[in-house]
Amino acid sequence: MQLRADILSIEAGGPLIVVINRDDAAELGVISSDRVFVRYRDEHAICILNISTEDEPGILGIYGEVKEKLGVNEGEMVSVEIARRPESLDYVREKINGQRLTPWKIQRIVGDVVERHLSDIELAAFVTSLHIHGVSMEEVEALSRTMIWSGKQIDFGRSPILDKHSIGGVPGDKTTLIVTPIVAAAGYSIPKSSSRAITSPAGTADRMEALAPVDISFEEIKKIVNDIGACIVWGGSIDLAPADDLFIRIEYPLSIDPLLLPSIMSKKKAMGSTHVVVDIPVGVSAKIKTIAEAEQLASDFIELGSRFDMNIECAVTEGSQPIGYNIGPILEAREALETLYGRGPHEIIDKATNLAGILFEMVGNEEGKKMALELIQNGKALEKMKQIIEAQGGDPSVKPEDLVPGEFYYDMPAPKDGRILWFNNRDLVRIARAAGTPNDKGAGIQLYAKTGDKVSFDKPMFRVFAEKEEKLENAIKQLKNLRPVEVGEKVGEDMMKKRIGKPTAPTREFILER
Amino acid sequence: MQLRADILSIEAGGPLIVVINRDDAAELGVISSDRVFVRYRDEHAICILNISTEDEPGILGIYGEVKEKLGVNEGEMVSVEIARRPESLDYVREKINGQRLTPWKIQRIVGDVVERHLSDIELAAFVTSLHIHGVSMEEVEALSRTMIWSGKQIDFGRSPILDKHSIGGVPGDKTTLIVTPIVAAAGYSIPKSSSRAITSPAGTADRMEALAPVDISFEEIKKIVNDIGACIVWGGSIDLAPADDLFIRIEYPLSIDPLLLPSIMSKKKAMGSTHVVVDIPVGVSAKIKTIAEAEQLASDFIELGSRFDMNIECAVTEGSQPIGYNIGPILEAREALETLYGRGPHEIIDKATNLAGILFEMVGNEEGKKMALELIQNGKALEKMKQIIEAQGGDPSVKPEDLVPGEFYYDMPAPKDGRILWFNNRDLVRIARAAGTPNDKGAGIQLYAKTGDKVSFDKPMFRVFAEKEEKLENAIKQLKNLRPVEVGEKVGEDMMKKRIGKPTAPTREFILER
Repeated sequence: MQLRADILSIEAGGPLIVVINRDDAAELGVISSDRVFVRYRDEHAICILNISTEDEPGILGIYGEVKEKLGVNEGEMVSVEIARRPESLDYVREKINGQRLTPWKIQRIVGDVVERHLSDIELAAFVTSLHIHGVSMEEVEALSRTMIWSGKQIDFGRSPILDKHSIGGVPGDKTTLIVTPIVAAAGYSIPKSSSRAITSPAGTADRMEALAPVDISFEEIKKIVNDIGACIVWGGSIDLAPADDLFIRIEYPLSIDPLLLPSIMSKKKAMGSTHVVVDIPVGVSAKIKTIAEAEQLASDFIELGSRFDMNIECAVTEGSQPIGYNIGPILEAREALETLYGRGPHEIIDKATNLAGILFEMVGNEEGKKMALELIQNGKALEKMKQIIEAQGGDPSVKPEDLVPGEFYYDMPAPKDGRILWFNNRDLVRIARAAGTPNDKGAGIQLYAKTGDKVSFDKPMFRVFAEKEEKLENAIKQLKNLRPVEVGEKVGEDMMKKRIGKPTAPTREFILER
Repeated sequence: MQLRADILSIEAGGPLIVVINRDDAAELGVISSDRVFVRYRDEHAICILNISTEDEPGILGIYGEVKEKLGVNEGEMVSVEIARRPESLDYVREKINGQRLTPWKIQRIVGDVVERHLSDIELAAFVTSLHIHGVSMEEVEALSRTMIWSGKQIDFGRSPILDKHSIGGVPGDKTTLIVTPIVAAAGYSIPKSSSRAITSPAGTADRMEALAPVDISFEEIKKIVNDIGACIVWGGSIDLAPADDLFIRIEYPLSIDPLLLPSIMSKKKAMGSTHVVVDIPVGVSAKIKTIAEAEQLASDFIELGSRFDMNIECAVTEGSQPIGYNIGPILEAREALETLYGRGPHEIIDKATNLAGILFEMVGNEEGKKMALELIQNGKALEKMKQIIEAQGGDPSVKPEDLVPGEFYYDMPAPKDGRILWFNNRDLVRIARAAGTPNDKGAGIQLYAKTGDKVSFDKPMFRVFAEKEEKLENAIKQLKNLRPVEVGEKVGEDMMKKRIGKPTAPTREFILER
């Protein structure tokens, strides 16, 4: 069937979609969500069909992605035929029905994901099935492998390549900004690609961006790492694992992440990592609740690593409260810099030197933690950080006091005399996001006390910063409904936590950070 | 945030979607697939967000459905805020995680489906979870009830209201066109709403449309049934169960139908049915393969009926080959009319009188089948059918010979002397659809022999009809690759069915007919 192209000024954000009039669809023998083969000159695309009741016959509505693929212009004629259902859909259905997928079948599915041949409905069914039926180690391996194939890979021409990854979930975790320069200061290569925040107040890329640009090209990364051994860049700009981004688009609204392991593995492998320490924070309001859960996840990481010839060790870390005293891109960059200047809080130094120390020991050093600590104390880590900032186009002379948060703030008073008994990470995240993070880099929260510290009635426990007055008000509004901090003399003083007299909706926030 | 409306000439076919520039989204603190609250004057809508990298800031792209809901015009200002995640998403997540849903939670989900607050991704995850975890009878009941609430209901002000439903899956099943007039000829009310074909060559609505219009309004249906006791209309025109149509949109591409029971129940209840016979065809290439499976489904139907004060009986019927000799809207309407004229094949008369007979016995008659047969033989069923055709705006004097299939045809010769050993329903369906059914009403297949009948080498076994030469060629092309009919002396003559030397993709066609 010949149809006239009507270019729609819109993108589907994933699948290749064309829109056809109901009568034309009937004539063609297709219905909504069937696939059609669209041909324009020498180009073609397999597209997913939407049916319009309003458009006139003879017209094919073309989304942005399809226009780009075909190079067709408004008003030109394209030919449209029924396309075969992609074979990968049969494998998606096998997974829906609980079968294990062979590597060959997984390859077909991931291939069709990257080619945008699967609709959101089909992808969601696949991701949901992976979550419900579970993913075997064989499937994780095959998913990782095909996700690696689908993206770019950097060969730095050297070994070892060290890396550090956190599964996330604890606010204020600026450890990467300290571990990376420590490791590079010892002469090792650590090309760190990191993500922006998805559901948190700041990702490592957001934090680093307060110090230097992070949108660095493939070639520049190679050059920087070659020169100084390290970088801290945004992974999104270098197309490391395009399939992963397409899966995250589906996982996020569903609050499930069955592809966590392949996602991380494919990104590490793409950077050529040989030795990786994976940080698994554990705590009631963290992503992983118990050490037993952390052990299971760690075993999977190590097993998976061994299949990709990658040494992996995991660090199960304290995740019951924020890391350090600051949450939000600028505030966290400042605290990281202070730590490199030797003035950081104990917990950040302890966490960073432990993680760097594990990496040092993995590549044959002894007393890794001590070695890491020395590199902070003798200023070499700071020196390396300045090199990284400069190489990425930032100002290496930046001092902690140059990093200034938003001008609007609100001090949250303690409700009574006592000690901080616990934090609710998720409530802190909500408040920080209401204040404008991660987009407003100066927004965030500064804590004046941590768990176990004394607070006094009506004296501030923490300060909320915002760049915009309106957003500060949003954050204050959130504060009234949430309970980010519990104050008391000791746990158990107040045994009653909540009285429930009618059914309540469960609120479970999902942390998706990669 | 105030944004200028850019009306997109496009519909999403379900969810309410708006498109926003990436920077505006970051400022608002939302990411793709989050929900926003869009307000225009006194109207508002909770919409699902798509993010565009190409659109300029300050603009809100608005899909057709959202424009309709808000009544906003191009260039007008709308306000956009972050919306709370719908509560129903927490329940969708509960189902993903294998929990049983309470009626209250199901009500929230179906409500948000009808309000278009859930995205395709979320709906697909829900439907997939229902399929994998199964749907308990309590959930089926609650789903049915809320799907009934979401649509219209007809009160005919009389009782009993009889109905007949087939779960479908066997081509050529024109039984409804015969059962309906038989039942009404006995003085009972049988307001039949039926579907168009989704994956088959003809639905009852398509068949009936060869005789009379089926797109009949709510008020007209009431009047017709009041006057003559019966109608055969298209359910899609009367909005009986809007939630169901939205679920079918998701089930179809996934080839799963966990909502089969609620779908049927809600439609029957909407018509006020009190006594329903459900036809469950059984056969290797039918939807239900074994009598044991049919028994399970029948028990569920009966149990569900009892919860809605509806008498249900099920008929497990022969489904291993097409019903009668004709497939395709016009060909089937012709065969049905011939049957009412007393010239139908035994199997159609047997099936129709059995089903009508069960209904007669359910409402207190004895020897129902005999009673049904008499109504065919004495011409009363034909007389009633003419009344139905006339009431719906068709020509009551139509004769079978007036119903002429497409002018192009191809006779498929028998490959050798022998008997028809079996049919493959699904291959027949593919061929009929390639020939143009259900859209081309004159397309289809006429069988010259059925299972057990003798065929002679090179003499035609069946004829494929098409309205367009090009489509006939498509059908012939399909014929070469498929194996709709097996010919031999007896089963077992040829023990080898297929030799497999390399992995093959499973092809399992899915039958979705309601």
